[in-house]
Amino acid sequence: MLGNTFGTLFRVSSFGESHGPALGVLIDGCPAGLEIDLDHLRSELDRRRPGQSKLVTPRKELDEFEILSGVFEGKTTGMPIMILTHNSDVKSKDYSAIKDLFRPGHADFTYFAKYRHRDYRGGGRSSARETVARVMAGAIAKQLLSKIGVEIRGGVVRVGNVVAKRYDWDTVEDSEIRSVDPDVVDQMREEIQAARKERDSVGGTIEVQALGVPPGLGEPVFGKLDAAIAGAIMSIPATKGVEFGSGFQSASSRGTELNDEMLPDGFCSNAHGGILGGISSGAPIVLRFAVKPTSSIPQLKNSIDKNFQAQEIETKGRHDPCVALRAVPIAESMLALVLIDYWLQDRAQQSLRAQYDPIEEIRYGLSPSATKESGDE
Amino acid sequence: MLGNTFGTLFRVSSFGESHGPALGVLIDGCPAGLEIDLDHLRSELDRRRPGQSKLVTPRKELDEFEILSGVFEGKTTGMPIMILTHNSDVKSKDYSAIKDLFRPGHADFTYFAKYRHRDYRGGGRSSARETVARVMAGAIAKQLLSKIGVEIRGGVVRVGNVVAKRYDWDTVEDSEIRSVDPDVVDQMREEIQAARKERDSVGGTIEVQALGVPPGLGEPVFGKLDAAIAGAIMSIPATKGVEFGSGFQSASSRGTELNDEMLPDGFCSNAHGGILGGISSGAPIVLRFAVKPTSSIPQLKNSIDKNFQAQEIETKGRHDPCVALRAVPIAESMLALVLIDYWLQDRAQQSLRAQYDPIEEIRYGLSPSATKESGDE
Amino acid sequence: MLGNTFGTLFRVSSFGESHGPALGVLIDGCPAGLEIDLDHLRSELDRRRPGQSKLVTPRKELDEFEILSGVFEGKTTGMPIMILTHNSDVKSKDYSAIKDLFRPGHADFTYFAKYRHRDYRGGGRSSARETVARVMAGAIAKQLLSKIGVEIRGGVVRVGNVVAKRYDWDTVEDSEIRSVDPDVVDQMREEIQAARKERDSVGGTIEVQALGVPPGLGEPVFGKLDAAIAGAIMSIPATKGVEFGSGFQSASSRGTELNDEMLPDGFCSNAHGGILGGISSGAPIVLRFAVKPTSSIPQLKNSIDKNFQAQEIETKGRHDPCVALRAVPIAESMLALVLIDYWLQDRAQQSLRAQYDPIEEIRYGLSPSATKESGDE
Amino acid sequence: MLGNTFGTLFRVSSFGESHGPALGVLIDGCPAGLEIDLDHLRSELDRRRPGQSKLVTPRKELDEFEILSGVFEGKTTGMPIMILTHNSDVKSKDYSAIKDLFRPGHADFTYFAKYRHRDYRGGGRSSARETVARVMAGAIAKQLLSKIGVEIRGGVVRVGNVVAKRYDWDTVEDSEIRSVDPDVVDQMREEIQAARKERDSVGGTIEVQALGVPPGLGEPVFGKLDAAIAGAIMSIPATKGVEFGSGFQSASSRGTELNDEMLPDGFCSNAHGGILGGISSGAPIVLRFAVKPTSSIPQLKNSIDKNFQAQEIETKGRHDPCVALRAVPIAESMLALVLIDYWLQDRAQQSLRAQYDPIEEIRYGLSPSATKESGDE
Repeated sequence: MLGNTFGTLFRVSSFGESHGPALGVLIDGCPAGLEIDLDHLRSELDRRRPGQSKLVTPRKELDEFEILSGVFEGKTTGMPIMILTHNSDVKSKDYSAIKDLFRPGHADFTYFAKYRHRDYRGGGRSSARETVARVMAGAIAKQLLSKIGVEIRGGVVRVGNVVAKRYDWDTVEDSEIRSVDPDVVDQMREEIQAARKERDSVGGTIEVQALGVPPGLGEPVFGKLDAAIAGAIMSIPATKGVEFGSGFQSASSRGTELNDEMLPDGFCSNAHGGILGGISSGAPIVLRFAVKPTSSIPQLKNSIDKNFQAQEIETKGRHDPCVALRAVPIAESMLALVLIDYWLQDRAQQSLRAQYDPIEEIRYGLSPSATKESGDE
Repeated sequence: MLGNTFGTLFRVSSFGESHGPALGVLIDGCPAGLEIDLDHLRSELDRRRPGQSKLVTPRKELDEFEILSGVFEGKTTGMPIMILTHNSDVKSKDYSAIKDLFRPGHADFTYFAKYRHRDYRGGGRSSARETVARVMAGAIAKQLLSKIGVEIRGGVVRVGNVVAKRYDWDTVEDSEIRSVDPDVVDQMREEIQAARKERDSVGGTIEVQALGVPPGLGEPVFGKLDAAIAGAIMSIPATKGVEFGSGFQSASSRGTELNDEMLPDGFCSNAHGGILGGISSGAPIVLRFAVKPTSSIPQLKNSIDKNFQAQEIETKGRHDPCVALRAVPIAESMLALVLIDYWLQDRAQQSLRAQYDPIEEIRYGLSPSATKESGDE
Repeated sequence: MLGNTFGTLFRVSSFGESHGPALGVLIDGCPAGLEIDLDHLRSELDRRRPGQSKLVTPRKELDEFEILSGVFEGKTTGMPIMILTHNSDVKSKDYSAIKDLFRPGHADFTYFAKYRHRDYRGGGRSSARETVARVMAGAIAKQLLSKIGVEIRGGVVRVGNVVAKRYDWDTVEDSEIRSVDPDVVDQMREEIQAARKERDSVGGTIEVQALGVPPGLGEPVFGKLDAAIAGAIMSIPATKGVEFGSGFQSASSRGTELNDEMLPDGFCSNAHGGILGGISSGAPIVLRFAVKPTSSIPQLKNSIDKNFQAQEIETKGRHDPCVALRAVPIAESMLALVLIDYWLQDRAQQSLRAQYDPIEEIRYGLSPSATKESGDE
Repeated sequence: MLGNTFGTLFRVSSFGESHGPALGVLIDGCPAGLEIDLDHLRSELDRRRPGQSKLVTPRKELDEFEILSGVFEGKTTGMPIMILTHNSDVKSKDYSAIKDLFRPGHADFTYFAKYRHRDYRGGGRSSARETVARVMAGAIAKQLLSKIGVEIRGGVVRVGNVVAKRYDWDTVEDSEIRSVDPDVVDQMREEIQAARKERDSVGGTIEVQALGVPPGLGEPVFGKLDAAIAGAIMSIPATKGVEFGSGFQSASSRGTELNDEMLPDGFCSNAHGGILGGISSGAPIVLRFAVKPTSSIPQLKNSIDKNFQAQEIETKGRHDPCVALRAVPIAESMLALVLIDYWLQDRAQQSLRAQYDPIEEIRYGLSPSATKESGDE
């Protein structure tokens, strides 16, 4: 329950502050014998890294990492893997102006309320810089998932009032916008630039999918696969909501619209988003989540200080006007962490059953004839 | 990770099948000395119970319960509390028609894929009947929360295309609709009856709030309070999405709209929904979730059987056309379970700190002058 | 950490008080498709049951059980298994004499200190009656272990000053003494009867073994297999110590005596007790534990009451003069619970590794030429 | 269950290999506002460090550590504390002779069986070098325990055939032998030197005590305080047994001898070792554990290689002939980790109870008139 650790059988512990000496992640439960793909790990970190374009913060985080344990002669040993990144770009700048103030929309006040401590150097542990740990662990999880045929992908489906109309997954990473719809990339970019010009910020929605997930992952009741994923996604900074398949639209729908009929070759549709009763159906897992506009905006705001006195505050500095874009690899990582953990959980029990009642694996999923509107494949 | 248990310090284990001999819940971590309010427990069960009106299923579940352990002379002993309900209304009806078929939209297929077992008697463990365990545990959690000044309430804010426009929490339980807006109760009822007449079902959205939550509950990174709540809510049958505060609307908003400024007497607004950086702010916790239309509708649908042969299926029987109404007490229960667990977690650490660095409790929340549009108080 | 639950992947929750309406156990993580052997379950309960002879307490506990969930048509469904026993022999006798007193050597005082509650009806939750839950869960675990070739056995190796000199596992269950050495059964019986005559009680030592455990079970550092087993065994009422292989004798030994050399066909000896570095070696797992003499003895003792006033107390009633005999099936159960949990843990990771680096299973253990003094096979 | 993490509310994760670039420990759950005593941390590390005398290995491990997170301006922040030590004395020596061999008595074979990987550079993760992580975490736990009045101490009570006869806790750290009895220090030293001369090693027994533990720590059934401590102690490398209070002697005792009568001012004796029914009684917690002789001895032994071919092996190098001496601070650390975790667990529930049923703290323990033979105070 202590918040810095995630997972049961593939367990990830994150540590480090945004402006402390280092951040990192400790991974326990990775089987031995895996050749770690360092290039992939680095490229995942690059996807998360700020400074990729004019639209995201110009801060330069090098994200050089070192693996301090758990890997020997290029392969995992089954022991805990410690991956460390040093904070290379920590400026000893002057924080005195905001040292005792709470930035609206940030965790400054709530962390102070809980810990009576104000890490004024950029949010400390509540900074989105912490997500570097998630992406490092997520990269290892993705490498493992690829061995069992699971692929994860994500893209932006909304920025402010600009909404993606079609899906072309091949072009998502072609621009820093990461739109699933190449036709609206320019509009999304303009939406962000307009917000920036008005000293404002703008929100967005991201869709993430997992393809190739076998039927049967998930647990009953509280341990439903979508419950676990929802928790994992909501833990991403600035996230305000998460939905699966037909999502919130379900509330205004009729049962006949969402009933995902079944044919021998698969589901006719995927309103259920790949999970039924908390257990994967074999159809693509499809989820979306909403990211609020960046809370740090260069405008004067009412706030209070540590003594609960009224103050005005203006958050200056280097910030993304739309943090949604960078949330894509983070969300993919969280989804990967959940899936590998549930795969392990499922396999433990299937292995035991196989000792007394061997069963054949079931393959099922979306029918080739299913409608592809939602971008399922 | 095994799915039938929830919580770390207040731990709830659910068991039982919809048509087995009994369902129940085992609660560990309830402190000793609590006088259990049996009337409250019963009234909570009644709120969840089907058969309350023509709009919900006419099945009569008596939900008589017995407490088999953990309570002595009317008070909790600190030992595990076992509460059992016997399934009194289990008809030995003829299931042969659907015995080997998978009902579309249900967990029949996915449970079969995982367990190779088809509890054709009404869904078995995946039946919403399981939620009786949640409500019993939730009632105990609510009784504990009331001792620390936390109140939980919920109501329906949308049924199909009918949306609540204002909040009047005092009238929610006046009708079986549980609308937060008394003005639209009749429209919501008509929406449901229309669906029923067309042999169809309809979805809905529920809002749940927690008032009086002190600032400081929640953990960093993965253990964020909203992450835990999101997971808890998504575990409710038929739920397709969950959001906090400004929710999905955040994606189309500007930062200036959601920046919840702070005054010495509280937050000016509550777009953050009572949680910032994963930690409670003292403002009301506000969340909404979408429930899909009942999957069981009396229409012929394409499906398959256990041998993956094409079949047609029509789900007959006693079912709610809109399960959202009954989800209200279930969601309240899940929220209560999360909050009491996090309160315990927080208090453990605060108690230790108090041994070497005593600190005063912070009280903060929504400013009396804050806008009340969203029904916050 | 809440004390009434044990295990991670095979999770057992115990509940119920000695004189409450019922006791039981909830088992989560048992795979589907297992045909439960009810006769075996019942015979295990009989082995634990008091009233088996003159030497153990004449109380008659029928231990009739019912399975309320998780089993359908004779087979496990993968859902939580609830097994309930009703307390049939609960006399409404007069407890007023000891109602407010703490019995020396019992948990009366410590439970009162923690819970401020005195379940004077026989110890409540701290009564050894609780172990019925362990044995029921252990029976299921043993049935699963038998599918993977693991056999567990236990017997008494010491009663007071009578020590077993040789091992004959075939005769252990021939008498209520459960001595591993048939030659000392009568002496052990006399030791116990002598204690009883003198209104006293006597301690004992039990040895438990697991045969057929494959090499590789266990986790590094804190999760060592012997660490987990030691915790499980120490949780048995009245246990004061636990040791593996050469045990406490190691302290007075030289390294050359305990060095367990290795030959191609197995270990030459088993001073390590089947576990090296916390991981099973394939040799039999061998452990012993000491059980203190029954604390309830019919002699006047100094004690205090709930107001910390001096009192004299004499514990009357039906009690075993040597509880060690009945601890045998309980210890076997605890060992079974640990082993099945670790097997599942190990198999999860091996299954994942098999997806990218298939490895052959290693078989190794005690060499056929090894000395058999300690009863290894 | 993954083995490298310990604790629930005070959670410690260990990582690193003996000959890898670094070892360290990640601590989550330490409350904010604690001024870390770096001198104490360093002195604890020094106590564990080899190279303190001729009797222990001459290897020089500097154990310089750095704190990479969780501490800001000298105080804990409530965030995870990462403490790292670099392996400064890693010689690139020639391991080719034993590269593919399994050293008898070591974890080489079992780690290979599980992970199919042989970290020939000194045992990798199974090396006792790992205990540096335990001692660092234990130092923080001890600092917290001192704030609640709990003191932990340990000493050697047996080396080979030399047994301590009396307790003088003030002189334990005066020699590298750490004997609780200053009168037998020289004999213990001779016992060790004799073993060394004969190219052999010798075992020992350590006693650890916790003073000032309030009554009420511990959980029922599986979560007994002694069960948790037993697991923690058994996880220390080379440990073969653990016992509490009267321990294994209980097996040959009568009930009258161990019945720890109670007076208004405390227990008359402490055969129970400070724990009754799994819950602390207020009397000193007293435990002993046996450490086997060092497995690495410079004598030719039969072994096998990775291909299961017969080989002879002689373990050379720098090793302690009696590892028991260095186990003292490690055991103290493990005991500290358990106690702080259970204190937090207990306090969570007591805090909740205090909201509706305030109770006064109970103080109780060993009576001043109690016999002091076992060194209790």
